[in-house]
Amino acid sequence: MENKYAIGIDIGGTNIRAAIVSDKGEIIKKIKEKSSGDIIHAIHKSVENLFNENIAGIGFAVAGLIDYQKGSVLISPNLPSIEGEDFVNKLSARFNLPVIIENDANAAAYGELCAGAGRNYSDFVLLTLGTGIGGGIIYNKKLMNVSAEIGHMSINSEGKKCLCGNYGCLESYASARAIISSAIAFLENGRKSILRDWNNNYKKITAEEIFRAAKDGDLLSIEVFKNAGKFLGIGISNIINILSPEAVILTGGLTGAWDIYVKEAITIASERALTYLFKRTKIIKSELTDDAGIIGAAGLVFNRQV
Amino acid sequence: MENKYAIGIDIGGTNIRAAIVSDKGEIIKKIKEKSSGDIIHAIHKSVENLFNENIAGIGFAVAGLIDYQKGSVLISPNLPSIEGEDFVNKLSARFNLPVIIENDANAAAYGELCAGAGRNYSDFVLLTLGTGIGGGIIYNKKLMNVSAEIGHMSINSEGKKCLCGNYGCLESYASARAIISSAIAFLENGRKSILRDWNNNYKKITAEEIFRAAKDGDLLSIEVFKNAGKFLGIGISNIINILSPEAVILTGGLTGAWDIYVKEAITIASERALTYLFKRTKIIKSELTDDAGIIGAAGLVFNRQV
Repeated sequence: MENKYAIGIDIGGTNIRAAIVSDKGEIIKKIKEKSSGDIIHAIHKSVENLFNENIAGIGFAVAGLIDYQKGSVLISPNLPSIEGEDFVNKLSARFNLPVIIENDANAAAYGELCAGAGRNYSDFVLLTLGTGIGGGIIYNKKLMNVSAEIGHMSINSEGKKCLCGNYGCLESYASARAIISSAIAFLENGRKSILRDWNNNYKKITAEEIFRAAKDGDLLSIEVFKNAGKFLGIGISNIINILSPEAVILTGGLTGAWDIYVKEAITIASERALTYLFKRTKIIKSELTDDAGIIGAAGLVFNRQV
Repeated sequence: MENKYAIGIDIGGTNIRAAIVSDKGEIIKKIKEKSSGDIIHAIHKSVENLFNENIAGIGFAVAGLIDYQKGSVLISPNLPSIEGEDFVNKLSARFNLPVIIENDANAAAYGELCAGAGRNYSDFVLLTLGTGIGGGIIYNKKLMNVSAEIGHMSINSEGKKCLCGNYGCLESYASARAIISSAIAFLENGRKSILRDWNNNYKKITAEEIFRAAKDGDLLSIEVFKNAGKFLGIGISNIINILSPEAVILTGGLTGAWDIYVKEAITIASERALTYLFKRTKIIKSELTDDAGIIGAAGLVFNRQV
């Protein structure tokens, strides 16, 4: 009898989140490890904690550009210490299990396909809206084996220089990082805002604070979120015109600001995308939220596609 | 024994171009009909001229947005008289043959896959660089059943209004239409150029004339082509970041200006796309040029994919 469980591991930000996941996409047991310090050690510890004889394989979701042939991470701006590390082959040898590695947004898209908001669609694009913006593309019910670096699509060719070296990337206008720096720029210019009272060092404000202020009617904060939403809408309309998906699924912390940020994006996309294509595209929220990457990475163990 | 020939028909511009094509992608016999006047009549005439008992089916490549379920053309800016016409089902009934319809750039991409510059790649994007800009995406050696309206990707979100209703579309900066209107704008502003001597009504200059002038060292014409090439490069870098293709294949009249226009595009794409992805992407010229659509449309008769 085949093993019906896999370990899914999401490496990104400050924590390693790992779980035993069934082949139906259910999370059986979930743990967290700090990813500070020796990250490879922390990865091994996570696997050890979850390993049992019913595990069919291990799937990693990692924020970064993946080298699928070598099974390693080429570039990971948030986790440079993992770049080039051969942990996939080492883990595979140690536990005698197949180990796969995938970009975190790609894994999240696959997770939503298996057990989330994408389960009823054949073709959709997932966008992760957080500090940065990532993407994953599902086509014919399969995860496309492509970079899907949708956050690094230039929408203002002479615009702001992005961390990636390009100019005017979607991520530079519509991510949490962009929202924060836009709010700080307004505050530096002397604009009135409740944010000044909430944080005695306004250079340390968070996207959550700006969103809370927006909900309280703070005009600066509303403007900042709406403006980011406008650019998200431009990005979504490009995606619709190029890939004509049935759905665009949005996930990540910024979807908390749905009513200001995403609603503006939907309005703008409706004005800009080719009408026929826009009308057949649903723009919806993820169901698995933070677990999508874990579930998708585990799911890829059962159903690795070329 | 199965029939090894199909009729491929390319409907766009001022002519209907049709051919008998073998299942190896070889053109056996090719004809042209004027598409002015009653286009449906002209389509029937083309098929009649080529029809014989060895024909397995008919494939259409049409400039426009296709409704695959109905087998009709939803929107075709250059051929509005074809919009909504049920010619696919009518032809199918009349000749008792399968008839398929595909967007012209999609068909051209499939043609290059079957018998052209794409035959050695699994994943590539084809861009048609003419009056407008179209696209077709090949993934895992199959034509993706998506809109691929890459010309209507906004690269300058607050830029020029495009015919499609969006702002700052790639097509508005990098197509022949854009090159011509950019040259005219310079001439209206009094810029010196050999173009003035060549054409007593400079508002009627063609992209060919501008290219010829550029080759003769005309500074205005060089600038116009280089600038269009820059934007093409921005579009290509977006495609590379999103779809990480093995190749970008360029076709259409503007590829004649490879050394000025495309070379500039490649330079810009090398600076803007994610380096690792750019390095693995070949940017090459189509081999089938004008025949790609015919060959691809015929090819889809033999190998229609879901």
